[in-house]
Amino acid sequence: MATAIAHGVENITPVATLEECKLLKESGHIAAAEREGQKAEGFDLGNSPFSYMDESVRGKQIAVTTTNGTLAITKSKGAVQVVIGSFLNITSVANYLKSQPYDVLVLCAGWKGKFNLEDTLFAGALVAWLQPEFEKACDAPIAAFNLFKSAENNLMGFLSDSSHVKRLRKLNIQKDIEFCLRLDEYEVVPVLHEGKIKKMVLGKAVKIID
Amino acid sequence: MATAIAHGVENITPVATLEECKLLKESGHIAAAEREGQKAEGFDLGNSPFSYMDESVRGKQIAVTTTNGTLAITKSKGAVQVVIGSFLNITSVANYLKSQPYDVLVLCAGWKGKFNLEDTLFAGALVAWLQPEFEKACDAPIAAFNLFKSAENNLMGFLSDSSHVKRLRKLNIQKDIEFCLRLDEYEVVPVLHEGKIKKMVLGKAVKIID
Repeated sequence: MATAIAHGVENITPVATLEECKLLKESGHIAAAEREGQKAEGFDLGNSPFSYMDESVRGKQIAVTTTNGTLAITKSKGAVQVVIGSFLNITSVANYLKSQPYDVLVLCAGWKGKFNLEDTLFAGALVAWLQPEFEKACDAPIAAFNLFKSAENNLMGFLSDSSHVKRLRKLNIQKDIEFCLRLDEYEVVPVLHEGKIKKMVLGKAVKIID
Repeated sequence: MATAIAHGVENITPVATLEECKLLKESGHIAAAEREGQKAEGFDLGNSPFSYMDESVRGKQIAVTTTNGTLAITKSKGAVQVVIGSFLNITSVANYLKSQPYDVLVLCAGWKGKFNLEDTLFAGALVAWLQPEFEKACDAPIAAFNLFKSAENNLMGFLSDSSHVKRLRKLNIQKDIEFCLRLDEYEVVPVLHEGKIKKMVLGKAVKIID
């Protein structure tokens, strides 16, 4: 999502099901769907960041459904604001959060309702980036932070044992993972606004959804 | 629970509510109840391991309700077997699990439905103890194992930040925590059998509940 927004995608509508995604395709969206780590059959794009670096997506609206990420966004709809974070835009996201008066809840999408390692490493990294302005409110950020500190010098090596990376390796998308572990490739802060993820224009008034 | 069983308690009946615990008291059990980290009013015992080292509990039946542990046991009732593990009996529990033909699911009781640090550290320690006979089936044991490895030389120091330890420190039960972090104080393997936790007699046939 960070890659798409950074490459000029107008907005991204996260949806829960393949059917909703197809319906939005009929109304002019590019339809992106990932299931079991791969592009779902009959859709324009999958989950690989490299698919979103193309000129053909610039200015376009994308509808997207993934196994875990879009569900996490749906679950977050009650929040004051939903910001999409990743290693690719971590400093921009951290700086934005520091500029805001709110507590931060890091919601890891996980994998099919379960804990996963790469999301927790990112959560721990974000905790590190948010210090000292923020304090850790409970044990989960303490654990994620310590896990990140023990892994930060070799994230790829640390992840090489993880079940998701093993799953992805079978799918030959090692280069996707390596790319997604890069720090600060982009300066965008994607935010959810009226059901769509858009680029936050910093320095302007922020609409609060509550 | 490990401390109580090691000190000759006949059995422990975990119950969900204070009311159930009181009913069992009327039928001759010692009634132990912890709420908010402290002994609940009107009960014989709380959650401190030191309360269970007394001669007066030997041979007795105890009914116990705690904020998190007894719920975790209730949730585990569908398992082939439920074993109670802690740092105090980790080697005995690990050796017993290695002698069995089953996969192991480590259920952390947590704190009021949330992740906590001390349970995850124990889970990671148990993963370490179970290697190489067992492999890590998903990301949670990988993370717990790495967290334990980064903390094992100073568990108390590592935990000193945690929300539960802060909560306990307010309650002046630092010595309970220090005691509970001791390795292999006991050789008991407490198991759940027909709703009661008893000392597993090793070397004899094990009844399987399924």
